[in-house]
Amino acid sequence: MAKPIEFYFDFSSPYAYLASEKIEAIATKYGRTVAYKPILLGAILKTLGGAPLSEIPLKGPYSKLDMERSARYLGVKLALPTPFPIATLTAARGLLWLQSQGSAKAVSWVHKVFRAYFVDGKNVSEPQVLAELASEMGIDAAALAAGCQEQPIKDRLKALTDEALARGVFGAPFVFIDDEPFWGADRLPQIERTLERGPI
Amino acid sequence: MAKPIEFYFDFSSPYAYLASEKIEAIATKYGRTVAYKPILLGAILKTLGGAPLSEIPLKGPYSKLDMERSARYLGVKLALPTPFPIATLTAARGLLWLQSQGSAKAVSWVHKVFRAYFVDGKNVSEPQVLAELASEMGIDAAALAAGCQEQPIKDRLKALTDEALARGVFGAPFVFIDDEPFWGADRLPQIERTLERGPI
Repeated sequence: MAKPIEFYFDFSSPYAYLASEKIEAIATKYGRTVAYKPILLGAILKTLGGAPLSEIPLKGPYSKLDMERSARYLGVKLALPTPFPIATLTAARGLLWLQSQGSAKAVSWVHKVFRAYFVDGKNVSEPQVLAELASEMGIDAAALAAGCQEQPIKDRLKALTDEALARGVFGAPFVFIDDEPFWGADRLPQIERTLERGPI
Repeated sequence: MAKPIEFYFDFSSPYAYLASEKIEAIATKYGRTVAYKPILLGAILKTLGGAPLSEIPLKGPYSKLDMERSARYLGVKLALPTPFPIATLTAARGLLWLQSQGSAKAVSWVHKVFRAYFVDGKNVSEPQVLAELASEMGIDAAALAAGCQEQPIKDRLKALTDEALARGVFGAPFVFIDDEPFWGADRLPQIERTLERGPI
């Protein structure tokens, strides 16, 4: 059994959202699954001394144009939201709680939260918004909210962020295929080539 | 007559080298030419407060792996050189002097210098190395060296660097198609799509 594709991401990353809309189809095509690993990119950038993309001179404005063009190129819906970026702690913990329960809805949560933010412009940093999304999916919103406060869930998010940093993750999406790293939605063609024929 | 594709680059950029090996074939396919515009990326990064890619924590080491993998993916020869990065002032002025002479060898100079550095590991910051390359191409090396010292050539390089900054250039390669910007060798597929069908 081939190793799952590891997909490190922050719910606030537009490029991670774009890649999340494509990665499962690619994985399935080559007999793989996707292990979604939420991290707090803000904490990583703080550790590394980097700035959020949107705040970097010239690169910030260009990146907006590039995100929108890349979405059209990939055929993925995108409406850049405000506020941006947002705190994604609770959405990430929600995913980890669903994963810890062995919930079949964990993967759907990834897409539900991403689309709520990047298509519908809902502020997914707000617990109330997340509760509504959970309810729409038939997830017990109160149980999810309680799960997000469990210490093992909190610890898991911190551990994943530390793990990512230790593996060299400095942005999102950051994908590993059999320990080989790929940064960015624009590496999807190289990811697919690697899955098809082995290391490039 | 369609506008030339504008290709801003620094001779020290591996990704600009990779793109330079592909851009003319793409341009020709869609009835365009390439206007090579050398700039001093170091000066731009200094103005913006950015660091050279190789010096950024985690991103630096990853970028080496990515450059080598991207070269294999594109089918372009690459041997990351030392020292890196280097001063590209003279190589850039040499190109501008050739262009100012209307030399048919200006485009060949781009490829000659890039390949000398990124394939053969020659230090193209050294005037002696550039003189040897010129001689191999049948260019009068003494005339080229003198041309690099002409004030209008020096001014032209500064003006191009200022022009690039004014147009939002913060890295290399930076390509404009009819004023639409594309940053990075990894945007070649979007560049080709744009040339084929218009704005994405």
